This record gives sequence, C-alpha cells and structure tokens, in this order.
Amino acid sequence: MRNVKYLKCTRCSREYPALPDMTTCDCGGILDVVYDYDSIRTSLTKETLRERADHTMWRYRELLPIEEDTVPQGLRVGSSPLYESERIAEDLGIKKLYIKDDGFNPTSSLKDRASAMAVTKAKEAGYSTIACSSTGNAASSLAGNAAASGIKTYIFVPSRAPKGKIAQLLMFGANLTAVDGSYEETFELSKKAIDKYGWYNRNAAVNPYLSEGKKTVALEICEQLDFIAPDFVAVSVGDGCTIAGVYKGFYDMYRIGLIDRIPRLISVQAEGCCPINTAVKENTPLRAQEENTFADSIAVGVPRNADKAIKAIKDSDGICVNVSDDEIREAQKYLAKNAGVFAEPAGAAATAGLRKLCREGKLEKDATVVTIATGNGLKDIDSAIKTVSEPIHCKNDLKEFEEKFGLK
Amino acid sequence: MRNVKYLKCTRCSREYPALPDMTTCDCGGILDVVYDYDSIRTSLTKETLRERADHTMWRYRELLPIEEDTVPQGLRVGSSPLYESERIAEDLGIKKLYIKDDGFNPTSSLKDRASAMAVTKAKEAGYSTIACSSTGNAASSLAGNAAASGIKTYIFVPSRAPKGKIAQLLMFGANLTAVDGSYEETFELSKKAIDKYGWYNRNAAVNPYLSEGKKTVALEICEQLDFIAPDFVAVSVGDGCTIAGVYKGFYDMYRIGLIDRIPRLISVQAEGCCPINTAVKENTPLRAQEENTFADSIAVGVPRNADKAIKAIKDSDGICVNVSDDEIREAQKYLAKNAGVFAEPAGAAATAGLRKLCREGKLEKDATVVTIATGNGLKDIDSAIKTVSEPIHCKNDLKEFEEKFGLK
Repeated sequence: MRNVKYLKCTRCSREYPALPDMTTCDCGGILDVVYDYDSIRTSLTKETLRERADHTMWRYRELLPIEEDTVPQGLRVGSSPLYESERIAEDLGIKKLYIKDDGFNPTSSLKDRASAMAVTKAKEAGYSTIACSSTGNAASSLAGNAAASGIKTYIFVPSRAPKGKIAQLLMFGANLTAVDGSYEETFELSKKAIDKYGWYNRNAAVNPYLSEGKKTVALEICEQLDFIAPDFVAVSVGDGCTIAGVYKGFYDMYRIGLIDRIPRLISVQAEGCCPINTAVKENTPLRAQEENTFADSIAVGVPRNADKAIKAIKDSDGICVNVSDDEIREAQKYLAKNAGVFAEPAGAAATAGLRKLCREGKLEKDATVVTIATGNGLKDIDSAIKTVSEPIHCKNDLKEFEEKFGLK
Repeated sequence: MRNVKYLKCTRCSREYPALPDMTTCDCGGILDVVYDYDSIRTSLTKETLRERADHTMWRYRELLPIEEDTVPQGLRVGSSPLYESERIAEDLGIKKLYIKDDGFNPTSSLKDRASAMAVTKAKEAGYSTIACSSTGNAASSLAGNAAASGIKTYIFVPSRAPKGKIAQLLMFGANLTAVDGSYEETFELSKKAIDKYGWYNRNAAVNPYLSEGKKTVALEICEQLDFIAPDFVAVSVGDGCTIAGVYKGFYDMYRIGLIDRIPRLISVQAEGCCPINTAVKENTPLRAQEENTFADSIAVGVPRNADKAIKAIKDSDGICVNVSDDEIREAQKYLAKNAGVFAEPAGAAATAGLRKLCREGKLEKDATVVTIATGNGLKDIDSAIKTVSEPIHCKNDLKEFEEKFGLK
C-alpha cells in the first residue's frame, strides 16, 4: 500500500505497520490509517476522477487501504444518490438541502461500505472466514457481501433478534448462532470463537479499515457537490464509527486539496441514548447510558468508537443535537413525503436533528446542508406500521370516496 | 419527440399520434411506441454512450418517448448492477451466468423504471395528480417517485393488502384508499375516480409509455455486456408488461445495430398461475387462471398485457417454464447464498425457471444467460421467514457452539 504510511493509535499515538488483520492498539485505543497525502494529491485529482469508469466506492482507490493489486470484493457498493430537495430547503429556511440516500446500497444500508472493505481485506490477508456479532445492518451487509465473494461467515446474534433480520442472514447462508443470553454474552461467545479459530474480525470499532470503507460516503458527497464542501453534514450517531468515517472522508479531501474546508458535522443522537453527545456537550469522559429509543441502529449505550466520534465532532466544530422518538417518526414521514426517500428510523434521525436546529434558528439562512440517510425503511417495516396512521377505508362507491377525501 | 414516429395498436395496427396521455386503442388493443431507428442509430452509438455522465435510465434518451426539452422526474432510477457469478454458472453447467439485480432501485423494484416514466410523462402533459390501483411494487414505486417530484397520488388498494405495503405508501404521502371489497371492485372505483377527475393513469398495460421505461433494463444489460447479446434472458412473468419491456429493449438495440441478435427469452411463471405460458405452449387464446402462488408480484390470473408478452416470447424464439412455490423458495436461497442477491419471491422465480431448464438439459453448455431479479427480498420479509429454517440456538458456551456447528 504505497499510499498508507502506517496505523496510529488515536489514544497513545503509537504507530503500527498496516497489516491487513490489525485490530486495536495494545493500550486498547483504536487505530487510524495515516496516508501519504502529498503523494495522493498528485494522482487523485478532479480530472483523473472524471475519467474513471468505476462508479463504486473503489473509485477513490488511492485513499483506500488496500494493496495496489487487490481486486475489490463483495457487492457493488457506493455511488448512492445525492438528491437536492428545494422543497425541504425552503421549508427549513436554508439555502440548499441535499439528502445522501445511503440506504441505496446492495443490502440497503451504509454498512455495506464497511463490509465490502472487510471482505476485501480478509481475502487480501488470506482468510476464508469472517465473523462478527451484531443484530443489525453490519451483520446483514457482511453476510451479503461475503456470500458474493464465496467467503464463509459466522454471525452471532442474541436470540431475541427480530425474525426478519434472522431470515435475511439465513438467506445469505451465514452460519448463524442465536445466543440464548444478553448481547454481552453474545459478544463474548463470538470473541471466544474468533480467538480460537482465527477468523477475520469484522467489528467496525476493532478493525481499523472499516471506517475507511465508510468514509467513501463523504468522498462521494464531495464529488457530487463538485468539490464545494457543504456547510453542515448531519449524521445519526450510534457506536460512532459512521460519523468518524464521515469526518475522515472530508479530512482526506481537504488534505489532498479537493475541498477548501471541512464541513461542520451535526451529530444527532436519540434523547433516550446519547452518550457521545453528552460527553461532547459536558466535556466529560464517556458514561454508559441506557438504550431507550426505537431507532435500533443508533441505540448504543456503550459506543465502541466514542474516541474517534468525539474527536470528529470537536475537530469539525460540530453541533450536537438529541431528538425524541416522536421527532424521528416525524422526520421519517417528512423525508418520504417530501423527497421520496424512505429511511429506517436511525436513517431519518439525522434529518430530525436538522429540523430541530432549523426550528431553533441555529443554522444560517444561507447554509448548504447534507443529511445522510443511513438505511432503507424496508429494514424495519414494523416501526413504519406504527408510525403511520390508518388508511382511509371506503366501499366501491365514488360518492363515499369523494366525501372521505373532501373532493367535491 | 423527434425519434418517435407514432403509436401503433398491437392488435389492429391502427396508428395514433404520440400524445403524452394516450391510453389504449379504440379496439381495446394495447399501443406500442414506434421509433425512427434510422435516425437514432446515428446519435446513439457505443461511442456517444461511453461519453455520457448520466448513469440513470435516462442515458438512453434517444430511445425513450419523452420530448427533447423534458426534464426527467422522479428518483434516481436505473444502472442496477449486473453481477457475474462463476460459481452459479459452474453449478448450472453453462458458460456464463449474470444476475441483473433490479431490486437495486430507489423503491427496490424494477417498477421504478415505469414509475419514473409515468411521473415524467404526467408532468410533460401538465398533470399534477397520478392515480393507480395496485397492491404491490407499482404502487410503492409510483408513490415514491411522485413524492420526489411533488406530484400528488391517489392509490387504491383492496383493504386486505398487507400492512407493510400500506405503511410504505402512507409514508410516501399517497392519498391511499383501502377499498372494502375485491381487487376488481378496487379497480372499478379507481377507474370511476380517474374518469371523473381526469388524473394521469399509471397502469402499465393501459399506458403505452410505461413498458418503454421498463425496457431500459434490457438496454443496460446490452451495455453492461459490452453489446454482445446473451443467449438467454430469464424473466418472471405476471401481467406481461415486464417481459414485453425486456423484449422491446433488446429489439431496439438490435434495430439500431448495437447488438447482432435478440436473446431468447425464458418466460417463467408459477405453476399455480401460468396463463401466458399456457397460451404460448398450447397455442390457444389466453384463458384466465386462479392465482395459486405465494410469489405475489406474478400472481396475475388475468394478465393485462398478454398480447405483448406472448408476442415477445414467440418473436424471440423463447422458452416457457413453470415453477412450483418450493422451487421459487429454493431459488431465493440459492441466489442469496451464492451471489449475495436477496430477491423477493417473484424476483427469484426467473432463476428457479433457469435452474429447472438446466437440470433438464435444455440449455447449451456454452450458453451465456442473464437472469433478472425484479425486486428486493426486503419487500416480503414474511415469506422469507417461512422459507428459511430456524437458526441454531446456543448458550454462551464455546463447547456447545463447536458441537452444534461440527467444529472440532
């Protein structure tokens, strides 16, 4: 990897060679990939990008931690749409509003970016099996991307995991273990098995390469906005890996001179589970919280990537905002109705936070804002059913229909 | 529309000017859009396509029935992935196998291609409201694409429609009527309302432009295969609009000289509902059938586009094959496990038919085949739950885990 200098601990600054199966620092800190930006800026330019036929996340190859001869694995990930919505911008009282619909990925969430990276790094390192413990999008995206590349997966979920998610994992042929116990016990069993069998570890906070996959969402936003950085980017935050990845993408683009500043990040958490925002706002060490929100993908009481997330928020002069479940539900309907983007609850949370800030007059009127929808609403149809009201019932009778819809 | 000559009835050959809100012929026949291929072949070439930055279905603009100055509406539709699977090709005993994953569209089905066209034509014709009656992918894709363009929708579903689908429609802000009655009554009420209020009619068999949207799936396949036509293309068939669109796309490409022959279509229907295949096989007029299959998107006993579908199968020297629900379930698992593509039942039916033909030795060993997955499996998670087996349960105990998975 010509362009990768080394891995560096975000806590103690110790440096490590960028081996493909590196995990955390000996001090327990999370590692960050350090690039040779001086070299990259000569080959990754607006002009070279324009010529590239590859419209996947791998088009930013110089900024990705894979070997020069590595063939990217997994499904076709990335190049999700960035929709501009004039209607929403007007309603929010800002200049421009863009929605990055990252549910528009092969297994319908942003996590595909990390999982495609995991499968690619695992193959690069000669592994034929990957394991993780998760009940959500990380698990399904790993199972799907691994299936595409013929890699075996062992996935551990607590047995209370929703049947729909289990069905998806089994469809993809994952070796699925439903652990009769808490999530903590599930994680423990997976760790014991990974340690014993030496499987590749797909755990976004432990594996330093995964947020490098996630950052491609920010690289795409830059290119889609013709390299004019937006003023704000709203991201929903759970374990912190996504907002850390988003920051890293903008940081990379800034360091190679393709954008002239890093956007301010808006970190949106649920009121019922906001340990990262609390730590930033109160400038205190992270404290565990309960997980009281229906937005399951961001219900993380003990975030595993808090260090990187907090640094991303602070370094970008970010804003923290917490939203209630009702505000998330409203944002879900708002996005779908006004932009045709049906996001899962955690995916709509970023927009809920943005609306709240706009209502409170905290964003400038000439602001350009991107809100990231991290997952497709079809992932959680049970929540959607509870969010909408009942349809209007009617017999096959035009008069009754007209009355019920107030048509003349 | 410089490149569109006129609309022509597929039954009585009568010609009509291509007005944007045309429906069927006075004789009841379905209209087909007739193009000026001699003119198109001069502007739509391999070279011009290579230069185009537009990676949506609208990149084939010369072959689409919209005015030169029309701005395409709706979401970002098209350019779905075409995955090659060496593993599946080997297993099936054919030379090459490609999966066109068309569930990878904004509302997760191929129907987005028709709905984006419907919204675009409606705006072109000055309509601000579109209506349709449907319980499935057509309804949700119309609602999503219309929401993106600020167009109002009235959608009529039978009140027995699954709650998940209703939730999606309500999220998109559709004016949704749940009709207490049969599908026939639902359709009748929608017709009465459309006739009275003059809304734009999004009904794939009635509206001649919608299969022109659907055909872009075939245009993409040609381009993705570098303009070498595959030998076979497997398509699941319900009301017949999709296979008719697929044929039209290959026909267009053949007529402008970008491919040298039209692939043979494999028409796959469910054993419990196969009126089109029966009509072709027995060379008899279409007879209504019951709708005995769990693959709801192709459970169409009285197909509304049978004329075009039957012509497409015959003109391409096609093959008809019927599959059982169990074969569809097996194909769903097969696609997900071997290629990472999780398709809804109707979306996997094409692959079920292909597997059956291969087992029966009906395809040549050197054949190149494309199978189209028309919708995402997340659309019907209830069926998926029934299709897969139970996960393996285990306590937080490495020994128990090892025993259950046969690890040493």
